[in-house]
Amino acid sequence: MAETSSKAEYVVGVDVGGTKILAGLFDSSFECIGTAKVSTKAQRGVEAVIERIDRSVRDAVDEADLSMKQVAGVGIGAPGAVDFPNGTVIFAPNMEGWKDVPLKKELEKHLGVPVFVENDANIAVLGVHVAELKSKPRSIVGIFVGTGIGGGLIMDGELYSGFNHTAGEIGHMVLDINGPKCGCGNRGCFEALASRTAIFQRIKAGIKDGEKTMLTEMLGDGLEDLRSGDLRKAIRRGDKFTAKVIEQAAEYIGIGVANLVNIFNPEVVVLGGGVVEALSDEMLPTIIKTAKDHAMPGTIKGVEIISSKLGDNAGITGAAVLARRGTK
Amino acid sequence: MAETSSKAEYVVGVDVGGTKILAGLFDSSFECIGTAKVSTKAQRGVEAVIERIDRSVRDAVDEADLSMKQVAGVGIGAPGAVDFPNGTVIFAPNMEGWKDVPLKKELEKHLGVPVFVENDANIAVLGVHVAELKSKPRSIVGIFVGTGIGGGLIMDGELYSGFNHTAGEIGHMVLDINGPKCGCGNRGCFEALASRTAIFQRIKAGIKDGEKTMLTEMLGDGLEDLRSGDLRKAIRRGDKFTAKVIEQAAEYIGIGVANLVNIFNPEVVVLGGGVVEALSDEMLPTIIKTAKDHAMPGTIKGVEIISSKLGDNAGITGAAVLARRGTK
Repeated sequence: MAETSSKAEYVVGVDVGGTKILAGLFDSSFECIGTAKVSTKAQRGVEAVIERIDRSVRDAVDEADLSMKQVAGVGIGAPGAVDFPNGTVIFAPNMEGWKDVPLKKELEKHLGVPVFVENDANIAVLGVHVAELKSKPRSIVGIFVGTGIGGGLIMDGELYSGFNHTAGEIGHMVLDINGPKCGCGNRGCFEALASRTAIFQRIKAGIKDGEKTMLTEMLGDGLEDLRSGDLRKAIRRGDKFTAKVIEQAAEYIGIGVANLVNIFNPEVVVLGGGVVEALSDEMLPTIIKTAKDHAMPGTIKGVEIISSKLGDNAGITGAAVLARRGTK
Repeated sequence: MAETSSKAEYVVGVDVGGTKILAGLFDSSFECIGTAKVSTKAQRGVEAVIERIDRSVRDAVDEADLSMKQVAGVGIGAPGAVDFPNGTVIFAPNMEGWKDVPLKKELEKHLGVPVFVENDANIAVLGVHVAELKSKPRSIVGIFVGTGIGGGLIMDGELYSGFNHTAGEIGHMVLDINGPKCGCGNRGCFEALASRTAIFQRIKAGIKDGEKTMLTEMLGDGLEDLRSGDLRKAIRRGDKFTAKVIEQAAEYIGIGVANLVNIFNPEVVVLGGGVVEALSDEMLPTIIKTAKDHAMPGTIKGVEIISSKLGDNAGITGAAVLARRGTK
């Protein structure tokens, strides 16, 4: 339990996703000492989600036996284009009605402390940069593989967000012009090949085509409630079909890494998100090998390709870093 | 002709390519008032090329009726990875023997003025940024389509060169995993789909397959000495096959633009290089349409996609900017 102090020395980081809102209370060395999770319920509208973010912050503070008086500020990672200086969510494709939402202003009214808002993949790479890599690398590409694939860029030691605050949309980088259709309407986008959604589709299509897998024994023929962790379990029990699908996804991720290394020549490529967190041991060697096979030799030389140890907490950690910077 | 002055107020910009070396003498407003061109003769070895660069500089100065005493500095664009602070060419894949060549130091001995060295695509985008766009955009992606495809990045108003000084290797971004083989060993790289080399190969393959084109009437069945300008002439005379090949290349370039806009969200995408210079009117509308169809709508909104007016002079202009900055 945290020591109680009347000084506002803590910050809260919140990761707002399309499905869930995760909040964490952090001390001055970015140790997480209390978390809270609520579902997003985006379909209830913007105002309802803002109230749920408010609640998640208060729950995380309460979880650590502290009070809002001890919180200096709150950082938010939001899934979409964010105008950081104004704290406005310009648009969030996966959350209905989120267009020009003044999230900073609204939450400051609710919470009574300074609030800072950034894109979710941006804050995840910020969290890895500051809390995990101690701000050492000058340039990082973060690749977060989950329901979709998000990216964040650190250049010259700082977050790079681009002209419309949307830099890092790496999930819609086309890798295979004639590949499978993506939700965005194009074919062969990175996330149509290697996201959890793409992996699950490939597994379900394989089962329909008569492939044998332990997953059906574990979860039933419909693969109810399939999760990335189930794939890991199946592979470790010797499931060849699941291993093959994951190997192929890792190859696609390796090609995505090679493209980004060729374009951006970063010091570090950090992989995260639910899929990589669950299957890091299975995927990382193939990702690294494929990236090295595909990138220009002089470009990938010395570039570190790692998976983040922060896992699902990269987002809330980065949001805490954002809050700490803003309130310093 | 330039006014003669004893003050060293001029700079020389040099673009060193695998085939030719182009040098230009520039006044203080980046007007080019004298040029010289010599072939590179890379096969004669590093020392011979350095002597030819030296000669191209002196020839450009002489062409403008000036003397080396009136030259404040020389900028060089080199085709490979360049360590800018040291002025060393780390490696240049298309020039035999170019590995850790201290080009700055050697040329300063030859020329007796300060010399500054950068990657050729980097200085081309620098030339466009400063001389053509008056340093206004904060971020630019430059795409130069010639024998290969090179790229340069301006981020937060400055050149971005990456960890190994190799950022912008966009020619080896994979766009079509199952596409044609690239010189680098991979399949479906951007330059294997849309460079002059790829376009010429597609035209020659088409002729073998019985396609009819005016190009054979213009140049003979072997298409001796085929150049990008011939494609423009054929299209303007109504050659449907050439038009189709160029349309397809423009579509690939549009997808490359979309990927880079999704990843970097720059303010401006500038297209240059010999192919775009010769075929800008034919290609640019398709490039823009395809990019808009493929990029995320919120990401490409307001992003300018233009072709550079500097054409083949983008490199020497940027090298002159580099020299001017270094000697200010």
